[in-house]
Amino acid sequence: MKQNITTILTLAVALVSAALASAQTNDPLPSWNEGTAKQSIIQFVEDVSTAGGSRYVPTAERIAAFDNDGTLWPEQPLYVQLAFVIDRVKAVAPRHPDWKEKQPFRAVLAGDLKTVLAGGEQALLELVMATHAGTTTEEFSQIVEDWLATAEHPRTGRPYTEMAYQPMLELLAYLRDNGFKTYIVSGGGIEFMRPWAERVYGVPPEQVIGSSIKTEFQLRDGTPLLVRLPEINFIDDKAGKPVAINQHIGRRPIAAFGNSDGDLQMLQWVAGGRGPRFCLYVHHTDAEREWAYDRHSSIGRLDKGLDEAEEKGWTVVDMKRDWKVVFSFEK
Amino acid sequence: MKQNITTILTLAVALVSAALASAQTNDPLPSWNEGTAKQSIIQFVEDVSTAGGSRYVPTAERIAAFDNDGTLWPEQPLYVQLAFVIDRVKAVAPRHPDWKEKQPFRAVLAGDLKTVLAGGEQALLELVMATHAGTTTEEFSQIVEDWLATAEHPRTGRPYTEMAYQPMLELLAYLRDNGFKTYIVSGGGIEFMRPWAERVYGVPPEQVIGSSIKTEFQLRDGTPLLVRLPEINFIDDKAGKPVAINQHIGRRPIAAFGNSDGDLQMLQWVAGGRGPRFCLYVHHTDAEREWAYDRHSSIGRLDKGLDEAEEKGWTVVDMKRDWKVVFSFEK
Repeated sequence: MKQNITTILTLAVALVSAALASAQTNDPLPSWNEGTAKQSIIQFVEDVSTAGGSRYVPTAERIAAFDNDGTLWPEQPLYVQLAFVIDRVKAVAPRHPDWKEKQPFRAVLAGDLKTVLAGGEQALLELVMATHAGTTTEEFSQIVEDWLATAEHPRTGRPYTEMAYQPMLELLAYLRDNGFKTYIVSGGGIEFMRPWAERVYGVPPEQVIGSSIKTEFQLRDGTPLLVRLPEINFIDDKAGKPVAINQHIGRRPIAAFGNSDGDLQMLQWVAGGRGPRFCLYVHHTDAEREWAYDRHSSIGRLDKGLDEAEEKGWTVVDMKRDWKVVFSFEK
Repeated sequence: MKQNITTILTLAVALVSAALASAQTNDPLPSWNEGTAKQSIIQFVEDVSTAGGSRYVPTAERIAAFDNDGTLWPEQPLYVQLAFVIDRVKAVAPRHPDWKEKQPFRAVLAGDLKTVLAGGEQALLELVMATHAGTTTEEFSQIVEDWLATAEHPRTGRPYTEMAYQPMLELLAYLRDNGFKTYIVSGGGIEFMRPWAERVYGVPPEQVIGSSIKTEFQLRDGTPLLVRLPEINFIDDKAGKPVAINQHIGRRPIAAFGNSDGDLQMLQWVAGGRGPRFCLYVHHTDAEREWAYDRHSSIGRLDKGLDEAEEKGWTVVDMKRDWKVVFSFEK
C-alpha cells in the first residue's frame, strides 16, 4: 500500500512539474510578475507582430532601443565603466609616476572617490582619456575583456557580466523572437560595451551605440591599425541619443527603454513617430534586491522623465513590484 | 509532315529554353563573363560559407562593405549628389536673391560648372551646406525622393535609380544569399543614400554609412525633430572609411569593394584582418557602355589602388571584359 501511494505521489509530482514547466515555456517573461507593465509589453508586441491587424508593423521597422546602465544592468554604487577607469588608473600607474602628485589621478590611487567626483566632468574626462586612449581598437577590446574576467561588483562580489537584469534579458529575447532588432543606445563607451554585449545581451557589435572618442587610421610597418585618440567624438546622452540613433540606424525605433532623464529625449523621439509606439522606464524601487533612487540621485536621476511618463501614459516598471527576480543568480 | 517538323522544332526550342533558363538560375552572377574576377568571387563565397571547411567564417562575421559612387552606380560625368546639389540650388534660388551675385551660387545658376569646380572644396562645401542643411531629417529625405522621381542622368536620360550596375546588384544578392550582411560605405551623404538604398540595392538604412553633417534634437511645440545643421560631422572618405566602419559596425568586414583611391584604406583595413579576406576594385575600362578612367581622372581616381591591387593580388574587375551588361536596361 505504502509502495502504491509513493508511486502515485511520484507520478503526481511529475505531472505537476511537467504542467508547470509547460506553463513556464509559454510565458515569454517568466521573471515578470503579472501586472500592467508585463501586460502592456505583451499587448504591444502582439499588436505589432499580428499580420493583418490594425497595429501591424513590418519586421524591418521593428527596432527597439535600450539604454544600458540602470536599464539592463546596475549603475550603482557607481557606473561599471567608472569602476573600470579606476582599476585601469591603478593598473597603469607604475608607468605614470607623475600621477602620484597629480589630480584627479592622485585621488583615484588613494581610493578617494569623493575628491574624484568633486572634480566634476573635467576630472572624469581626464581619467577616461588616460585610460581609454593611446591603444589600438583591438588592444582596448582585449583590455576590457581581461578586466571583466576578474573584476567583481562591490556589493554582490559577482562578475559584472552576471549582473544583467534577468527580466530585461527575457524582454530582449522576447522582442527578438518577435522580429525586433534590439539596439543598445547608451551614454557609456561604445567600445567598452561591444566586447561583451553579444555574449551577455545577445546584441551584436553593429547594434551597440554609445559615446566615443576619436580614432585614427594608421599604417604601422604596413599593418593597418585604428588608434584611439584622447579626444571626444560623441557623447551619447540626453539630446545626443536621438542624434546617434538617426546616425547609426537611420530610422526611428518603435520602442524605447530607459531608466533616467538621460533617456528622456530618446523616449520622446520614439514616441513622436507615426504608428504604434512603446516607451518604458525602469524605476529603481527595490533597495533590498537592487537600489532605490529616482528624483534626487546624482547617478541615473529620474525626475522629468517620471513626470512625462505619467503624463503620456508610458509604461513605468516598479522593479520591486514587477520583477520576480532581479538577477539570474537569485533563482 | 510539315506539321510534325514544326511540332518537333517547337518542342526542341522549349527544351533548349528550359535548359538555358535552368543554367541561368544556377549561375548566381549571370551578368558576369566567365573569367578570373567571377571565379575569385565565387571561390571566396563558397570557401567562407562551407561549414567544416578550412576557410569557413561564421555568418555573424560575414560582413561586406561596398563603396557606392563608381562601384555600385556611375559617378560620371559628375557625382549624382552633385547633380542633386545643382538642381537644388536652382530650385531654392528664388528664396535667395543674393545668390545671383554670389559665388559659387552664381556660377551654378549660370550652368557654369567649370567655375564651380575651380572653387575647389570650399565652393562645394558652401553648396552642400546651402542645400543639405536647414531642414529636418524627414523633410530632407522627402526632398531626395522627390528629386530622384524626376531627375535624369545626362547621358542615358534614365532615372539615376535605374543606373545601378546590374553585375553589382547580382553580387550584392549573391553575398546576402550566402549569409553576408552587405553595407554601403560611401563618401556620399548618408542621408542622401538612405531613402533609396533599400529599394535599389537591398541595403537597409542601418547598413548605409556615409559622410554627414551635424543634426540637432529639438522639441518644436512639443514635437521632437532632428534639424540638419550647416556643419560637417564626418567625411567618410579615404582614412575616414575604416574609422566609420569601426564606429558603425564594430567589427572588421571580410570583404570590401571599391573603385578608387578613396577606397584604398578601406580595402587595406579589410585585407589586414585575420582569416579569409576578399578585396575587389571595379576598374572603369568601358568607354562605350560606361566610362573609361583611372590614374588621371579628377573623379574617382584609381592610381595607388591599382598598384596595390596588383601587388597584393586583389581582384580587379575589367568592366569591359568582365561584365556582360553594365545596366539592366541594356538587356
